[in-house]
Amino acid sequence: MLTVENQCQKAKQAYVETGILSTELKNDTLKKMADALEAQSSFIIEENAKDLENGRQTQLSTALMDRLTLTKERIFAIAQSIREISELDDPIGELLDEWTLPNGLEIQKKRVPFGVIGMIYEARPNVTADAVALTFKTGNAVVLRGSSSAYHSNSSITETLRSALIENNISGDFIQLLEDTSRESVTQFLQMKNHLDLVIPRGSANLIQRVVEQATVPTIETGAGICHVYVDAEINLDQAMDIVFNSKTQRPSVCNACETLLVHETVAHQLLPELIKRLKEAGVSIRGDEKVVNIVSCEPATEEDWSTEYNDLILSVKVVSSLNEALSHIHTYGTLHTEVIVSENSSTIEQFLNSVDASTVIANASSRFTDGGEFGFGAEIGISTQKLHARGPMGLPEMTSYKYTVRGNGQLRGV
Amino acid sequence: MLTVENQCQKAKQAYVETGILSTELKNDTLKKMADALEAQSSFIIEENAKDLENGRQTQLSTALMDRLTLTKERIFAIAQSIREISELDDPIGELLDEWTLPNGLEIQKKRVPFGVIGMIYEARPNVTADAVALTFKTGNAVVLRGSSSAYHSNSSITETLRSALIENNISGDFIQLLEDTSRESVTQFLQMKNHLDLVIPRGSANLIQRVVEQATVPTIETGAGICHVYVDAEINLDQAMDIVFNSKTQRPSVCNACETLLVHETVAHQLLPELIKRLKEAGVSIRGDEKVVNIVSCEPATEEDWSTEYNDLILSVKVVSSLNEALSHIHTYGTLHTEVIVSENSSTIEQFLNSVDASTVIANASSRFTDGGEFGFGAEIGISTQKLHARGPMGLPEMTSYKYTVRGNGQLRGV
Repeated sequence: MLTVENQCQKAKQAYVETGILSTELKNDTLKKMADALEAQSSFIIEENAKDLENGRQTQLSTALMDRLTLTKERIFAIAQSIREISELDDPIGELLDEWTLPNGLEIQKKRVPFGVIGMIYEARPNVTADAVALTFKTGNAVVLRGSSSAYHSNSSITETLRSALIENNISGDFIQLLEDTSRESVTQFLQMKNHLDLVIPRGSANLIQRVVEQATVPTIETGAGICHVYVDAEINLDQAMDIVFNSKTQRPSVCNACETLLVHETVAHQLLPELIKRLKEAGVSIRGDEKVVNIVSCEPATEEDWSTEYNDLILSVKVVSSLNEALSHIHTYGTLHTEVIVSENSSTIEQFLNSVDASTVIANASSRFTDGGEFGFGAEIGISTQKLHARGPMGLPEMTSYKYTVRGNGQLRGV
Repeated sequence: MLTVENQCQKAKQAYVETGILSTELKNDTLKKMADALEAQSSFIIEENAKDLENGRQTQLSTALMDRLTLTKERIFAIAQSIREISELDDPIGELLDEWTLPNGLEIQKKRVPFGVIGMIYEARPNVTADAVALTFKTGNAVVLRGSSSAYHSNSSITETLRSALIENNISGDFIQLLEDTSRESVTQFLQMKNHLDLVIPRGSANLIQRVVEQATVPTIETGAGICHVYVDAEINLDQAMDIVFNSKTQRPSVCNACETLLVHETVAHQLLPELIKRLKEAGVSIRGDEKVVNIVSCEPATEEDWSTEYNDLILSVKVVSSLNEALSHIHTYGTLHTEVIVSENSSTIEQFLNSVDASTVIANASSRFTDGGEFGFGAEIGISTQKLHARGPMGLPEMTSYKYTVRGNGQLRGV
């Protein structure tokens, strides 16, 4: 078995020796990756069956088993998404700025790859192909640390993708799947500062917490979303109900789903009875503060509810007496992901959009729009909830760095 | 004494309650800060005398004593530099991008402050004023962790700067100097994830190492520079000598000074005798590899020399037989800061500029130009040697984040 250090080293070596790949070669390789996945789909499904068998023995939940399962249809969908990535604009080489100093030095600021990106994620094997395609498109080598429960699936996918590199005379070491899937290997991985330029975690709050605490490699925190919808005093009632309903129920398991509804007291009696009836009919459990409990029948919310990302058909609801009370609640419990206001008052809207500290602040639309695909980025590696480097949906440009080149003719510094 | 947590909390609170300050108010406050420093210069010099007295008792080195000393002239220079910062363009509010989705959602991407920036740095009290001015200009609150040996100086400076905030009805809590200067307070500070949005260290490699290992707050690594000058086979001999001489001697104590000279074997005999004579006359000690030792009289270089940032009048010198050998040496020992090529061959230059992984790659000019002031940024908070968020000299825009605002009229997500 290769060690974590060994594999990270190989990736760095491959990156350094290969240098900047041309856009044409990268896109052609991506297309070959897609073809190879389709051609190898039976092999991948066989390997996936081993993980599923292990999953049955270790009694993985039905939801996890479903996320783990690969079918021919799912593999073809993955291949298709790689073909789409091959069609996107290549950010590498983009001239971000250029200027000439009074002393004649010519400075250019250009986009370059990070180098080697580490990805750490949980069960879904489709993330494996996705991460490889996005990092390769942006000229980076990648080291993947997937879940041990998906190891056979991940391994068959990376082996297949590597065959496309080799076909195009690119070092297969550009793609590494960590062979050591022990718990300790995660800590080692997060401290490979000499070989990794960036680590991106995708997964549970626990995983992200571990990354933040242990990493010495720079990281981008992703995903945790306690998103609020604030329904103001002046609203279009139907629109408000539709936005809350869509934000909560359209896909409750994801980070941009709404977890807490804040309602201005002026409209609480008008809005809540009908809205909560509709939500309950869709299977949503409601946990309300005292004022809510006095208006509709529901469980009382506890302090813990305000700071919980349910990722499930549960909604906490609070009545507030002012915009400021809503802002203060969001400031206390929000995770800098997505916050929504529903209002017909343009000055209230502007105040909310300006004051709320979150990657994405939305007026009069569903929280579910915070998404690279919806934003038109064509691809998304994750949603950043930190402020350093990238915020919100991260597309291809967010997977790059830049460097300065300076051309002179003998300039020396005087002071 | 206020605790670290307490002070970080106060800064966050002040930031959240104040929100985005107008450019006019910020610039006016900066001018008042400069005036206050001048008006309070006698008080600051008195407080500085206490630190100097402690320094004498604890036998601080002459160099550190000099860096610690404040005079009326130095204080007026600090005030002048704050006035210059007040004249720079305000990056906050800049519209970075905007577009409308097919469903009618209007997206804007705008520059915003980080929120609260933590700064950790060593002896120089002028960094205190500098850090406050740059963070305030970019709308951020700041928590400073200066050296305990400069506490009285730092405290008198921050007290003076806070008076300008209060004069303009801005919460003085925007500026915090940590009162707890124990060693443990550093670790606490680096883990104030709920209150700090970013930590920037400025100082020794040891300090930066500690930050990288202990921080859970996102950080920007700055400063460590093992910078190489590579003198190619095809050169203008005089230009090559001048560039090496300037890169090494013009200010040897700083991060963008040259530490290692790599010389192509074709020109070694022509270049080295005269260049090294000139360097020695300027007080530079030379440590050469075997080939260098055969050409000029000098100490032999050890493996440790190649990985040492001398920050002093010492130069290690190596003869290489090809561009590739130079690139490989730089890849092994470089710190991603600044790398220089001296060459008259344009294709060699382009290969070097493209291949070298460093924040700034320079052809035919001194390494000393990697600097916010020289680049024309008007101000510099440090030089980043990481690839996340900022690379190379960091000016005002690098001290900001961005957020997305989305304006809709009831859009819901379908799939």
